[in-house]
Amino acid sequence: MTVVEEPVTSSSLYLEVQQFYARHMQLLDSGRAGEWAETFTEDAVFAPEHAPEPTVGRAALAAAVQRSHEKLVADGEVRRHWHGMVDVAPGPDGTLRVRCYALIVGTRVGGTPGLLMSCVCEDVMVRDGDGGLLVRERRVTKDGVAAPVLP
Amino acid sequence: MTVVEEPVTSSSLYLEVQQFYARHMQLLDSGRAGEWAETFTEDAVFAPEHAPEPTVGRAALAAAVQRSHEKLVADGEVRRHWHGMVDVAPGPDGTLRVRCYALIVGTRVGGTPGLLMSCVCEDVMVRDGDGGLLVRERRVTKDGVAAPVLP
Amino acid sequence: MTVVEEPVTSSSLYLEVQQFYARHMQLLDSGRAGEWAETFTEDAVFAPEHAPEPTVGRAALAAAVQRSHEKLVADGEVRRHWHGMVDVAPGPDGTLRVRCYALIVGTRVGGTPGLLMSCVCEDVMVRDGDGGLLVRERRVTKDGVAAPVLP
Repeated sequence: MTVVEEPVTSSSLYLEVQQFYARHMQLLDSGRAGEWAETFTEDAVFAPEHAPEPTVGRAALAAAVQRSHEKLVADGEVRRHWHGMVDVAPGPDGTLRVRCYALIVGTRVGGTPGLLMSCVCEDVMVRDGDGGLLVRERRVTKDGVAAPVLP
Repeated sequence: MTVVEEPVTSSSLYLEVQQFYARHMQLLDSGRAGEWAETFTEDAVFAPEHAPEPTVGRAALAAAVQRSHEKLVADGEVRRHWHGMVDVAPGPDGTLRVRCYALIVGTRVGGTPGLLMSCVCEDVMVRDGDGGLLVRERRVTKDGVAAPVLP
Repeated sequence: MTVVEEPVTSSSLYLEVQQFYARHMQLLDSGRAGEWAETFTEDAVFAPEHAPEPTVGRAALAAAVQRSHEKLVADGEVRRHWHGMVDVAPGPDGTLRVRCYALIVGTRVGGTPGLLMSCVCEDVMVRDGDGGLLVRERRVTKDGVAAPVLP
């Protein structure tokens, strides 16, 4: 088994994705909705399986996070999104396919942290004009919604 | 204190180990028992301290995961194995010694995620014929089994 | 958006920080107080917002961890500190500014793991004489202490 076919390139890519997610999630959890939306392409599709329909485009993504953050502030709750077990597969067309795990930890004022959600996150990432990464498609599968199956 | 003696090589190795664990754990949690077993050497030894005896060899590893996954499917439970705080030490003989933390998060259908286990995982990794990584030995120490001691 | 301005250098730095934190936290959780304190500068300032005052200097840091670890051993509790979502920003003066998330997982003998704390950790790191990394300043903000605000 060869884990990475082009080690040097993939090493650099792998790091870049990790650093990207760090900033991406810190923007999200800080409620910086507009800056967070700019880490997606203008026409990005965010599709959680447990949502009735996908959120499409930066404006809608920013508005959704703005609303969520206002509700969290009203509830006195801080949330932290963690990505881990990040598997990065560069595609032949310059896109990246990422499959990783996600956890959401929530803490209310005066309370103790709780594990709110465990998910699988599948991203398609592309390069913007400056060479930076942007998410073009995100599919989120929340654990506990569908029953697990044999492979 | 010098964290890495050969930064370039070690950087590449460190990434490769992270990417390896991502795929390794995603195979495990998907119940892809045979493919998961192939990320170990043919004669690998998997030794959780809390198990009565180690599991030895790919066939036994695959069979154990197959049984576990069938039980999880029957119970409607999804598990996610996270590795973190990964410390990689390359040995003079080309092996890698890894010591990291592991968490297991479990979610039943209709339920919320729970923290099932916290462990320390110690791996000895080697290269296969194609240059990819394989686990040759794994020792797992589960928190809460033995009382902590002064160092 | 350019995620990393100098990809090669930053890739190496990013890895070095991850490996540093792995060893740093494993020393902490093993109660190896003196070795842990040596991953800080001699005059380091460790300032958790929820503590009455910062801990300053290696000797005080080592003594604090020594006391904490003795209490944990007396209580039969193992703790694991996880860092994640690590955002590394190299400064013009050779320092690194890191902002990341931290989780503390605790397990008592015979018990199951619990999520004890969720934090944001902000480090200023510098190079020692051998080129290794040391923490010069650490600021920790514990979730649940202050109410979240709009950005």
